[in-house]
Amino acid sequence: MTIKKSLSNISSKAMIGENVIIGNFCTIHDNVKIGNNSIIEDYCTIGYPTPLAEGAPLIIGENSLIRSYSIFYEGSVFGNQLKTGHRVTVREKTICGDGLHIGTLCDIQGHCKIGNYVRFHSNVHIGQKSIIHDFVWIFPHSVLTNDPHPPSCDFLRGVEIFEYAVIATMSCILPGIKIGKHSLIGAHSQVTKDVPEKSVAFGVPAEIKCNIQDIKFKDGSGISVYPWTNHFTRGYPPHIIEKWNKGDIDF
Amino acid sequence: MTIKKSLSNISSKAMIGENVIIGNFCTIHDNVKIGNNSIIEDYCTIGYPTPLAEGAPLIIGENSLIRSYSIFYEGSVFGNQLKTGHRVTVREKTICGDGLHIGTLCDIQGHCKIGNYVRFHSNVHIGQKSIIHDFVWIFPHSVLTNDPHPPSCDFLRGVEIFEYAVIATMSCILPGIKIGKHSLIGAHSQVTKDVPEKSVAFGVPAEIKCNIQDIKFKDGSGISVYPWTNHFTRGYPPHIIEKWNKGDIDF
Amino acid sequence: MTIKKSLSNISSKAMIGENVIIGNFCTIHDNVKIGNNSIIEDYCTIGYPTPLAEGAPLIIGENSLIRSYSIFYEGSVFGNQLKTGHRVTVREKTICGDGLHIGTLCDIQGHCKIGNYVRFHSNVHIGQKSIIHDFVWIFPHSVLTNDPHPPSCDFLRGVEIFEYAVIATMSCILPGIKIGKHSLIGAHSQVTKDVPEKSVAFGVPAEIKCNIQDIKFKDGSGISVYPWTNHFTRGYPPHIIEKWNKGDIDF
Repeated sequence: MTIKKSLSNISSKAMIGENVIIGNFCTIHDNVKIGNNSIIEDYCTIGYPTPLAEGAPLIIGENSLIRSYSIFYEGSVFGNQLKTGHRVTVREKTICGDGLHIGTLCDIQGHCKIGNYVRFHSNVHIGQKSIIHDFVWIFPHSVLTNDPHPPSCDFLRGVEIFEYAVIATMSCILPGIKIGKHSLIGAHSQVTKDVPEKSVAFGVPAEIKCNIQDIKFKDGSGISVYPWTNHFTRGYPPHIIEKWNKGDIDF
Repeated sequence: MTIKKSLSNISSKAMIGENVIIGNFCTIHDNVKIGNNSIIEDYCTIGYPTPLAEGAPLIIGENSLIRSYSIFYEGSVFGNQLKTGHRVTVREKTICGDGLHIGTLCDIQGHCKIGNYVRFHSNVHIGQKSIIHDFVWIFPHSVLTNDPHPPSCDFLRGVEIFEYAVIATMSCILPGIKIGKHSLIGAHSQVTKDVPEKSVAFGVPAEIKCNIQDIKFKDGSGISVYPWTNHFTRGYPPHIIEKWNKGDIDF
Repeated sequence: MTIKKSLSNISSKAMIGENVIIGNFCTIHDNVKIGNNSIIEDYCTIGYPTPLAEGAPLIIGENSLIRSYSIFYEGSVFGNQLKTGHRVTVREKTICGDGLHIGTLCDIQGHCKIGNYVRFHSNVHIGQKSIIHDFVWIFPHSVLTNDPHPPSCDFLRGVEIFEYAVIATMSCILPGIKIGKHSLIGAHSQVTKDVPEKSVAFGVPAEIKCNIQDIKFKDGSGISVYPWTNHFTRGYPPHIIEKWNKGDIDF
């Protein structure tokens, strides 16, 4: 049984799965498929129409949670277990894997590719044409840019971030930059050059400072903090944690 | 014929033009004039009352589009073809020309002057007393400050940005700074000194690096990227593009 | 008499004081106490349920004003005269004193301690476990971080900011850093080391540049700008201003 609250506007054309809960004050447009057991909280706009979607529907996978005041345009696709904070904006033609978390106030501009189990903390801005691989983390107020010659439209080059990389708070990644697998960008950095895998880079402009394994816990144990999958598993599903426990992280 | 959706609260005192569409869940206050053929999307608050407006109305020009969840205070004035993203906040006593675009999450603090065809991308913060001339571009997460002695109120000095200048992503402009015509501020810069016209400046603190014409396309053609009006015209009206095609840009 | 607008969902379990005004399109959940003479504007969510609150209520003091589109989770406590901008998000288990101002778009992540008469301007991000003492000011787009080894959860160390300190626009404070009493952090700074009291620090990374009293007004008077309590009192109650007039600021 699906629960639809009384003060929402829900299109009869929207394809809404089993056991979906839709809050009050919501607007569910026509071109939408919502997977089973998902929750759309109050004040959300789902499937906001845009000609830029070229008729493609918004698809939200099963067991998802979209928190209040969020807007999803038509034309993007999300796997299962999508989870958002409040006031998230996602535009058209972004294709995402399973288990994506999008923090409060994030603004995903559309035309992006996002892998599995990616995490965006609060107020992250993802420019068009960004490519983000599995297990990437991006921390608050970071921005992925895309325009080497602002303003332009013919020259946009998205940022690409590889598996397990971490972008710390308030960093700005310049157009077309590639951040390697298992690398870490320090807080408040401006990244103007590609960063190879397993590197730590920070500063304005960011410089490579050391290998990721050189960062040790401060307890004197001599143990490396990274790969972070050795000590941080909160919120990931059992089959992923099992994989990590086996060291299957291509490190 | 004007369309007013059923679940909105619309003051009978509001002056609403012909062929205006007002979405659901909107709140239209008393002291408001909305021009013909404009669209106010769902969840907007138009004409939010404040004593700081001193009784002045909110005026929105014709053919405007205010996207969902936006708030406009009473006491500001917009020309025609205003276009916003979602969750925009604009406070009182800001006077704007035609064709202003305000991106998602922008926060315009009021008491500003904004020219014609200005573009703010997402999450730009415009401090009180800012002056922004025609055709300026400001990219995501940039901030125009105004307080040389925070916190103060008697000493506020707004930033002034001249025609065709471009402020790239995540830049912070210090109080009272002037950015010259046709200049470019690079991403993630902190601007502490005035920037003359046709200059490229970036860094923390920003330094002048070259003349704007020294930036060439990367295709080996030797052609200068700037003035940007030579290659970027998307969204501007025909009479403006015609002017630019004639080179009438005071370069 | 309390005024509750017709299009809101208000739990009969919520404890709502005398002369409270609740706007339209609001959602007031069960586990909430709202003090007398407070105003909750349109589109707010008050007492958003979370198991992380462990059953603790949201308590909002008397004479408070929560502006539109804000979300407050259950489990946080606010003194009297709380005042917010629009679209504020406050999560669980944050304990605040009287007279807190929270600007538009601020995101307070929960599990923080915030003193009396603290002021956050727009779009400030306060990480979990932050401690902010009385009379602190934080300006737009600043972030208090908390994770020295992102992503982690066992190692979080909040920032601590002492009385009367000022964090200017777009600054990023690293995990566990302490900012001393009466200090000033300049705009667009990255703070990686503790800052002693009465110091001015800025840059990426921030360096201590001078004593706070070395900053003089630009009028040639030779008078020090700081302590700011000598010239800025807007919005503070009479008993506080009287205290400041006596020089009772532990400077």
